[in-house]
Amino acid sequence: MKMRILLINGPNLNLLGQRQPEIYGSTTLQQIEERVRKRAEELGVEISAFQSNDEGGIIDFLQKESPSADGALINPGALTHYSLALRDALEATTLPFVEVHISNIYAREEFRHHSVLADIAVGQVSGLGWRGYLAALDSLVAILKERSG
Amino acid sequence: MKMRILLINGPNLNLLGQRQPEIYGSTTLQQIEERVRKRAEELGVEISAFQSNDEGGIIDFLQKESPSADGALINPGALTHYSLALRDALEATTLPFVEVHISNIYAREEFRHHSVLADIAVGQVSGLGWRGYLAALDSLVAILKERSG
Amino acid sequence: MKMRILLINGPNLNLLGQRQPEIYGSTTLQQIEERVRKRAEELGVEISAFQSNDEGGIIDFLQKESPSADGALINPGALTHYSLALRDALEATTLPFVEVHISNIYAREEFRHHSVLADIAVGQVSGLGWRGYLAALDSLVAILKERSG
Amino acid sequence: MKMRILLINGPNLNLLGQRQPEIYGSTTLQQIEERVRKRAEELGVEISAFQSNDEGGIIDFLQKESPSADGALINPGALTHYSLALRDALEATTLPFVEVHISNIYAREEFRHHSVLADIAVGQVSGLGWRGYLAALDSLVAILKERSG
Amino acid sequence: MKMRILLINGPNLNLLGQRQPEIYGSTTLQQIEERVRKRAEELGVEISAFQSNDEGGIIDFLQKESPSADGALINPGALTHYSLALRDALEATTLPFVEVHISNIYAREEFRHHSVLADIAVGQVSGLGWRGYLAALDSLVAILKERSG
Amino acid sequence: MKMRILLINGPNLNLLGQRQPEIYGSTTLQQIEERVRKRAEELGVEISAFQSNDEGGIIDFLQKESPSADGALINPGALTHYSLALRDALEATTLPFVEVHISNIYAREEFRHHSVLADIAVGQVSGLGWRGYLAALDSLVAILKERSG
Amino acid sequence: MKMRILLINGPNLNLLGQRQPEIYGSTTLQQIEERVRKRAEELGVEISAFQSNDEGGIIDFLQKESPSADGALINPGALTHYSLALRDALEATTLPFVEVHISNIYAREEFRHHSVLADIAVGQVSGLGWRGYLAALDSLVAILKERSG
Amino acid sequence: MKMRILLINGPNLNLLGQRQPEIYGSTTLQQIEERVRKRAEELGVEISAFQSNDEGGIIDFLQKESPSADGALINPGALTHYSLALRDALEATTLPFVEVHISNIYAREEFRHHSVLADIAVGQVSGLGWRGYLAALDSLVAILKERSG
Amino acid sequence: MKMRILLINGPNLNLLGQRQPEIYGSTTLQQIEERVRKRAEELGVEISAFQSNDEGGIIDFLQKESPSADGALINPGALTHYSLALRDALEATTLPFVEVHISNIYAREEFRHHSVLADIAVGQVSGLGWRGYLAALDSLVAILKERSG
Amino acid sequence: MKMRILLINGPNLNLLGQRQPEIYGSTTLQQIEERVRKRAEELGVEISAFQSNDEGGIIDFLQKESPSADGALINPGALTHYSLALRDALEATTLPFVEVHISNIYAREEFRHHSVLADIAVGQVSGLGWRGYLAALDSLVAILKERSG
Amino acid sequence: MKMRILLINGPNLNLLGQRQPEIYGSTTLQQIEERVRKRAEELGVEISAFQSNDEGGIIDFLQKESPSADGALINPGALTHYSLALRDALEATTLPFVEVHISNIYAREEFRHHSVLADIAVGQVSGLGWRGYLAALDSLVAILKERSG
Amino acid sequence: MKMRILLINGPNLNLLGQRQPEIYGSTTLQQIEERVRKRAEELGVEISAFQSNDEGGIIDFLQKESPSADGALINPGALTHYSLALRDALEATTLPFVEVHISNIYAREEFRHHSVLADIAVGQVSGLGWRGYLAALDSLVAILKERSG
Repeated sequence: MKMRILLINGPNLNLLGQRQPEIYGSTTLQQIEERVRKRAEELGVEISAFQSNDEGGIIDFLQKESPSADGALINPGALTHYSLALRDALEATTLPFVEVHISNIYAREEFRHHSVLADIAVGQVSGLGWRGYLAALDSLVAILKERSG
Repeated sequence: MKMRILLINGPNLNLLGQRQPEIYGSTTLQQIEERVRKRAEELGVEISAFQSNDEGGIIDFLQKESPSADGALINPGALTHYSLALRDALEATTLPFVEVHISNIYAREEFRHHSVLADIAVGQVSGLGWRGYLAALDSLVAILKERSG
Repeated sequence: MKMRILLINGPNLNLLGQRQPEIYGSTTLQQIEERVRKRAEELGVEISAFQSNDEGGIIDFLQKESPSADGALINPGALTHYSLALRDALEATTLPFVEVHISNIYAREEFRHHSVLADIAVGQVSGLGWRGYLAALDSLVAILKERSG
Repeated sequence: MKMRILLINGPNLNLLGQRQPEIYGSTTLQQIEERVRKRAEELGVEISAFQSNDEGGIIDFLQKESPSADGALINPGALTHYSLALRDALEATTLPFVEVHISNIYAREEFRHHSVLADIAVGQVSGLGWRGYLAALDSLVAILKERSG
Repeated sequence: MKMRILLINGPNLNLLGQRQPEIYGSTTLQQIEERVRKRAEELGVEISAFQSNDEGGIIDFLQKESPSADGALINPGALTHYSLALRDALEATTLPFVEVHISNIYAREEFRHHSVLADIAVGQVSGLGWRGYLAALDSLVAILKERSG
Repeated sequence: MKMRILLINGPNLNLLGQRQPEIYGSTTLQQIEERVRKRAEELGVEISAFQSNDEGGIIDFLQKESPSADGALINPGALTHYSLALRDALEATTLPFVEVHISNIYAREEFRHHSVLADIAVGQVSGLGWRGYLAALDSLVAILKERSG
Repeated sequence: MKMRILLINGPNLNLLGQRQPEIYGSTTLQQIEERVRKRAEELGVEISAFQSNDEGGIIDFLQKESPSADGALINPGALTHYSLALRDALEATTLPFVEVHISNIYAREEFRHHSVLADIAVGQVSGLGWRGYLAALDSLVAILKERSG
Repeated sequence: MKMRILLINGPNLNLLGQRQPEIYGSTTLQQIEERVRKRAEELGVEISAFQSNDEGGIIDFLQKESPSADGALINPGALTHYSLALRDALEATTLPFVEVHISNIYAREEFRHHSVLADIAVGQVSGLGWRGYLAALDSLVAILKERSG
Repeated sequence: MKMRILLINGPNLNLLGQRQPEIYGSTTLQQIEERVRKRAEELGVEISAFQSNDEGGIIDFLQKESPSADGALINPGALTHYSLALRDALEATTLPFVEVHISNIYAREEFRHHSVLADIAVGQVSGLGWRGYLAALDSLVAILKERSG
Repeated sequence: MKMRILLINGPNLNLLGQRQPEIYGSTTLQQIEERVRKRAEELGVEISAFQSNDEGGIIDFLQKESPSADGALINPGALTHYSLALRDALEATTLPFVEVHISNIYAREEFRHHSVLADIAVGQVSGLGWRGYLAALDSLVAILKERSG
Repeated sequence: MKMRILLINGPNLNLLGQRQPEIYGSTTLQQIEERVRKRAEELGVEISAFQSNDEGGIIDFLQKESPSADGALINPGALTHYSLALRDALEATTLPFVEVHISNIYAREEFRHHSVLADIAVGQVSGLGWRGYLAALDSLVAILKERSG
Repeated sequence: MKMRILLINGPNLNLLGQRQPEIYGSTTLQQIEERVRKRAEELGVEISAFQSNDEGGIIDFLQKESPSADGALINPGALTHYSLALRDALEATTLPFVEVHISNIYAREEFRHHSVLADIAVGQVSGLGWRGYLAALDSLVAILKERSG
């Protein structure tokens, strides 16, 4: 059976490409989702993409989809820094996930330097732009294959 | 008229019994709600149960139900530690409530040691498993009867 | 074309006038919205009012309405103190806004002394009661007119 | 053989009922001990009550009685916040115990918000008045029976 | 009898309009005082304006003038952040006052984010430029009228 | 001319594969260098690999090689957390670099959560094992090509 | 009836005059108690002196003697800085007391700068040597007479 | 030659007796100065009293008068908490002084708990009302006589 | 005359060998005292051993025995971390002492990393098990001989 | 036209040479001003010297003299550590200045380690005694000549 | 086969005996190494001694020698307080080691109170002078024999 | 005999003049060494210059050269902020030294505001560019002559 990876983007990431391109680049969320899907196809993996500005909505999605998923790529946006409810959802679902940030969060405001999710993630990719999603996908899929290997 | 108690459970508590049983036990939320209802019946009290993964949804519920309620048992899940909006809702409704935690939050991660709600609660019960809800119900009902006495 | 200002009120502000009048006064949110509208009319400005208890809902509103708006008055309620997602939405929309607080947040609990939004606002008005909205509106409209000069 | 529970009250709790009733209520320690004993009888459990103003005395009591006890209810009074020697005694005896506070320690002075014992307790009950002892007893006995079950 | 409002500006505010216009704008203190006076006339209120670079001088002024004044608008400049003596003077005189800052102090250096006066003020206006004085005056006069109402 | 990337590994990374495989995996540094070289060949890029246990030695290498290099992959080992001299060297050479960590530094000891280099890096990859080097290489080369466009 | 004042000295104050005279002077505790008694006689006041190295012992003494006392002079020694149990005893007994320190605690180690008792005392005298007891006695008696006056 | 003691009162202490009597009592500064003078006469000591709202003015006074004085009683008002310049003046003049506070500074706002002067004082008296000046005078004169003895 | 060394063990150390052997080993306090005595005999030194769970009791012992003793080995148990009264007793007696901990206190809970006694000790031995007492004895006796030498 | 440099000394520096010579040396302020003037003459530069114990007075001087000055040497005394009003004055006047300290402020009390002015200075000289003024003058004049060069 | 113990001394310990004898004593490093060797011979153990001022050099030595060693005595000098690279080397080599400090690090500057190595050591000896090495050797050898026993 | 001064420059200062000239200026290290030598000649003083990127190397140099030197000018680069080993070397050699920084370290990143060396230096010069070395040399030589005078 095909491996299935959730691609979850948090608050304001639907604005990618339109605003603050000096920080987030000019690639739209749609383009990112397409590129992730294309790479996923090459890797023989299925992608289920989701974006929401709502913490509760993301938790609902995670609870519903995780039983039939193998892993997740998550860019939680600003929820990275305070959403302990999202953390609990991720911990409860025990889904292996990689945290992705388009910009280098360590080169920005102090409050962006701390993630309440990173310690329960497989890993974190930060500052590599939209390519960070591909880098995370490649690695996550390889790690999952190795584990299930 | 019968006393009415709200039973509110926050994010991820719908997963009780299915995940991380070493922390939260194997009792499901449904079972807890039933046991609380049964004890409430014995005490001559009505229960209105609600669970949501959404901060805003819980606040809406509280605003709507509190005028016709006498008290509340609340397990806010991870919202315990940062939801000042939930705090404001509880303070605004002036509903006497007991904060309940299934696990001992003081024996877990540092971030779980601080509650932004506890100082406006009647009290807090932590670490007594699903029985904590019953303990809280017994005490809250007795206290409310004494007050209205 | 008429200038358009968003008037956004966060969690629990729908309870204004009914609860804790010793802190928030006895004016209802509806009355505030009417008074802001009346003053706006005098200034030749259009008002779009919105209230929600939901962080995600406010961000959705901001993303949808900001392209056709010139500025905003925002009383984020308790979200002031932790909603980095709201901050990101405000920063992304680049809408000039004034942060309004009915009570003097610096005379209340420690946790109310810090705003995660104030540094990206035009300014902040705190403690002037419902009149703070009018004070903010007067100033914001004048500033916007000067800028568009 | 009958289950045996230690009921330990720390410094100044002998003054219960006489002083600061607005915080601690008007029930005396004797009355609390009687009510706990009565409930214990109903549960088929034996109670050994002890109160001391002396840290060393409480540790001596714990060391002597714990080998023949099954659990403990402890209201350590102000020792809650600094007595690492009491903590070591509790940890060494490995007796399952519930920490009980009559008042809501989270609604009082900052220094009362931190317990140096709570993380090694089964759980904590705070703010439920003298009923907190009963709530703790009910739960502790049920938990101990389940474990030995 | 006419209401009398003190308009007090602290250290370096006499330089307004001449220096750092990118932060403080190009309006001079004289112009601000005139505009405040003009608005005060419209409101039927008398203004007594004072500026000093000297903490002691401002306290002397406050002690002398407060018995015959009804309220104050105060821009304490850098004294905002450390002058506990000014705070004591304001607290002793019990004069209702609004704290005004031309620039948005929350968008500047860390040390400007804390005011040692704000918690005893009626309210605070920050970042609305010279208009902030008018906004504060409007609100303060209305509040004082309501109180004496 | 071929793009040239420095591959720098700090203290104790020469022990990879031999020690603490539960944290760092069983791949040796040599194997990692080979895999990075192989991928680099596919990308048409040249790799210069270097490992040292000595802060001064790494700075010397960086000063000497950076004028003829286009970018760097750096796993600074424990120097990540305190070597301000390495930071200065990286800042002085203005070489674009990606910081790579084999283990998830955010899931380990507190002192590993802070990097003194990350804010001047292009980005950071953490927790993806030896694959993190490939992920970083892919992204860095793509970013450098885009820039030199 | 004669006013009765407790004179309580904590751990190690029995060593006064024998050790570290460069800090505590060469007057013995006995001499201090005599001088306090003599001054008390002049003021028409009775003194009950007590010294103990034991926190529990001091609390026992306070609980027993406070019902028949009008006030207390307390030099808690090192208990000043951490004995929350002593604080609770003092708060429970509601006995007006002055905290006395022979040496200037603010000119010594950092840990001596904070008293957990001072905020519930009438006042504090520090650094005036054995005369500090007399100064405290004079003032306390005068204040008590004024109150009961 | 007669011993000469400076009696220095800082900002806002000229308002004693008129304002906030619930904190500072109803005795005026003039009355305090008279009572100190009277007691000084009994002790054969001369008093030079000074009050100013101005940090600079107090330092000038200290520099001018200290060469002909033997000691000082100082109530620095709010300067207690931040006037390092006053501290330097006191340290430079090497005049033995006692710091006096009418109210119990440890029972008030957090910022009043720290004195930047106390560690270079002979001692500190806090919370004994106007009598604190007499208590400080008695002790200081006795200490000075002993030293010069 | 024979050198005399006090061997003092604080709260809960009487439980050594019976509880938590994975931390404290299986040697009992009696066995440790015997081994220390035996080594002392070899060194021509007399040992006076004492254990108490009571802070006050240990201070009493120290005050009584120190005048006739030459040094001390002290394992204060949990008092290490907060007993400022014990610190004062040790400082007052000026007895040279070595602080001994059976377990490595730096490898345990955060609160065990700070000793309030260590800075006034000759030295500290931690983590060497019961042998730490012998190591401390050897060194202390040699140092004392050298000093008196 | 001749370059003009302000030489400003803050509180208590008029006491130089008379007090605490072990810290500040035995050179008087007058001697320092003469030596600075002499060196200034050699450099073809004019000096305007000013000393005050008054924060407000120094700000007045700076506001008045800076328009006709090219730079300043400032030893702010204790104002270094808290006078944000002086900082604002220096920032507003945009006069290039060097901060001079006679003693090594980093080898003294903790509170002297932080300057609220240093980050807006050209530079800082500390611990070189009266020669520090000459060192600062030489450098400042050279820098100003280079800039205007 | 003979047990082999590494004896490693860090930066500036080659200066022992020549400098700051009031802190470090007058014994040279050579003498210490000889005494350790002599004691080792008595215990039937081989010593390999090494000193370097270079962090990298010490790590190289550890990596090379640890495979053929059974344990280590390490006095890391100032590296104790910040060398996370040395920590990683020690953790990677899994060599049991005792941390030795000649002076009592807890009686010196604040920065010397924290060791970044101590939590992964067997134990720590501090303040026992050169004898601390012997004490550590005795204990370490006994512990290693027991373990291999 | 001629006075001999060590001129020591730490990591990355060999890059002076080539990189980040907006911070460090365009003067090379060679030019600075020449200018220092030339000034030294005028003062009749000999200079021994040394630069290294290696902490260990600088300590070796200091240990070897200090016995035949009279003082040092040290720009430790980034080692300023964490090299406690360098601090120990400087303290051990007891060589009088002045710490020099080309840029104003107080106007840069937070981590550059703290020097671990400054409190044992004669003084510190910061922000005066390459001229800072000359200013430091002038003062150090004069101070050394005065001392040996």
